[in-house]
Amino acid sequence: MKVLILGGDGYLGWPTAMYFSHRNDTVMVVDNFIKRKWESQTGVHPLVPIITLHQRIQLWRSITNKSIEIAIGDLLDHNFIYKVLEDFGPDTIVHYGEQPSAPYSMATRESAVFTQTNNVIGTLNLLFGIRKFCPDAHLVKLGTMGEYGTPNIDIEEGWLDIEHKGRTDRMLYPKKPGSFYHLSKVHDSNNIEFCCRSWGLRATDLNQGIVYGIDTAQTILHPELNTSFHYDSIFGTVLNRFLVQAAVGAPLTVYGNGEQIRSFLNLRDTLSCVALATDNPAKFGEFRVFNQFTQQFSIQELANLVVATAKRAGITVDIHKIDNPRVEQEKHYFNATQTQLLSLGLKPTILDNSILDNMFKTVYKFKCNVRQNLNKPNIKW
Amino acid sequence: MKVLILGGDGYLGWPTAMYFSHRNDTVMVVDNFIKRKWESQTGVHPLVPIITLHQRIQLWRSITNKSIEIAIGDLLDHNFIYKVLEDFGPDTIVHYGEQPSAPYSMATRESAVFTQTNNVIGTLNLLFGIRKFCPDAHLVKLGTMGEYGTPNIDIEEGWLDIEHKGRTDRMLYPKKPGSFYHLSKVHDSNNIEFCCRSWGLRATDLNQGIVYGIDTAQTILHPELNTSFHYDSIFGTVLNRFLVQAAVGAPLTVYGNGEQIRSFLNLRDTLSCVALATDNPAKFGEFRVFNQFTQQFSIQELANLVVATAKRAGITVDIHKIDNPRVEQEKHYFNATQTQLLSLGLKPTILDNSILDNMFKTVYKFKCNVRQNLNKPNIKW
Repeated sequence: MKVLILGGDGYLGWPTAMYFSHRNDTVMVVDNFIKRKWESQTGVHPLVPIITLHQRIQLWRSITNKSIEIAIGDLLDHNFIYKVLEDFGPDTIVHYGEQPSAPYSMATRESAVFTQTNNVIGTLNLLFGIRKFCPDAHLVKLGTMGEYGTPNIDIEEGWLDIEHKGRTDRMLYPKKPGSFYHLSKVHDSNNIEFCCRSWGLRATDLNQGIVYGIDTAQTILHPELNTSFHYDSIFGTVLNRFLVQAAVGAPLTVYGNGEQIRSFLNLRDTLSCVALATDNPAKFGEFRVFNQFTQQFSIQELANLVVATAKRAGITVDIHKIDNPRVEQEKHYFNATQTQLLSLGLKPTILDNSILDNMFKTVYKFKCNVRQNLNKPNIKW
Repeated sequence: MKVLILGGDGYLGWPTAMYFSHRNDTVMVVDNFIKRKWESQTGVHPLVPIITLHQRIQLWRSITNKSIEIAIGDLLDHNFIYKVLEDFGPDTIVHYGEQPSAPYSMATRESAVFTQTNNVIGTLNLLFGIRKFCPDAHLVKLGTMGEYGTPNIDIEEGWLDIEHKGRTDRMLYPKKPGSFYHLSKVHDSNNIEFCCRSWGLRATDLNQGIVYGIDTAQTILHPELNTSFHYDSIFGTVLNRFLVQAAVGAPLTVYGNGEQIRSFLNLRDTLSCVALATDNPAKFGEFRVFNQFTQQFSIQELANLVVATAKRAGITVDIHKIDNPRVEQEKHYFNATQTQLLSLGLKPTILDNSILDNMFKTVYKFKCNVRQNLNKPNIKW
């Protein structure tokens, strides 16, 4: 299978590339390295030093004797992505190639406009390219559980059977996203659904929970095959951030009362889910949505888990509740459905002490790199 | 009241400006005249010659002794709209300033990308400007009934009370738009709802039916106060188009079987509805949605009305059913709610023989300007 991975230099993209390459798929990664610019702009850096994508690809080949192709360019340049689609002819396109941070999108007008332009227009160019050059390809698009917000009814997988005044229809699940970033993903979903319905394209929208984790079965083959791990308040996800705070003995900063419930999954499960979607493609004309997570926790529960993890390592840390920099409900109903990936065979990785201890060990090893001020939220909305 | 009208040179914007000026509101119009570029690009022209916006404003003053202020610029230039908002300090912003054509948005990748960028980012700039310079202003945003598509349940006004597995929530009504243009309006609505919820802005989203009509109480004050009336397949709406076909004795071109049902309103009622929304603003933090139409017809019914209108004028015309250039359901349920504008006092203009005869008379008078090839749909999706 020919698998094209957009955003192949990222936290998820690079492990995904190795995962598919490992199982002998033909893999091409695309990136424009703009994450490096955002890192410089916002003054953040990954916890663990990372060699360049080219170097990682060379290292991967030297270790496994497997090639990963690479194309450098921007989805906003439609001629670039058209040529990639025409030349490579992918069976599956795994699309991580978007600005991934809610706080970044909320920082300024410029960053909001950039996020929506980059994500929505980049994906539009991709859709036109698929239609023109590889209409049979299956688009596996990464969305987020955050698109749903925190509705007072169960969150279904993208579609909802609605009964109203004695009539029924199956409709897109109504969403209430919490940032311009999350909105960009909602816009994407609406555009993609239209292209499936009108042009007969096929797509799976993966509404993913918050990913945690450092290692995969491929990153552990060599220390320099690691993926970028952010612990800052802009690009770092919450569990990763808590572990870094604990490693340096800093209090864990919980936004608001910590009763917000979110859905989570291990980085390794991201790869399994993307592979399950790839191996079981949507039908032509189908806009399919999977909710992609394995567990639900409140932020307070996660903080408690990390306090206990640090304690097992002999470190005592506190939890500090700080003013919530985000506009979000802190006390709310939350129950999300996730059955389709399980029925395709997903075996969830459960967040247990062994996983937490292992993550903590790695984070602790690199604690000399931590700049503590990066943990503090500096963008409010 | 200070009323800022974005897109003040357009079919709806110009009559709206005169309407508010007539009732002694302080009116400023904004336009970038890009419609003139689209007309040249696509080779279309309004049926009735139209003098420039500056000339119309001068004429309006000479007739009524009332001023309309004007600012020329683009919503994509945030500094421009920021300065307008800061200097003018509007109480109400009536936002027509978007690319308004579904076929135009479906013509090419470029036009799709342009439509979504122009509409979504222009509105984002506006939202940031309102937050910064006039957070008390009421945004009256023009959307379209086409955002809803043709669901199998009744179309409610923007929000839907959903009961699911024994729990309930009031959620945004799920939409199934039929073009990149309609999608851009859905994206707008989602962005605006977020800004109301997160920033406390207030907005009314007017999901408008298909507008027909030529005259308003102000355009009839002088022949050169007319608004632009398009009859082409790109910018012309269906009833206007049929009347022009009938005037030149050409067959009325119905797309597909003609059983598609759509909602309609008279140009004069657009002005009444916008005024009702303006005079009864949304609350701070509220994202309010009105469905703005007065009648529902099938396309076939409209064609029949126009055949009869032509017959009364002694002209016999046929109806030609042509291959539907659009991807849309031709046989479908359609029942849209419209109660909020009625309860605010809207007195609907009903499409009767007198209105049809009057429109036909005007159209007939200018039939020498008609280029018939412009009636044929030349954009398919």
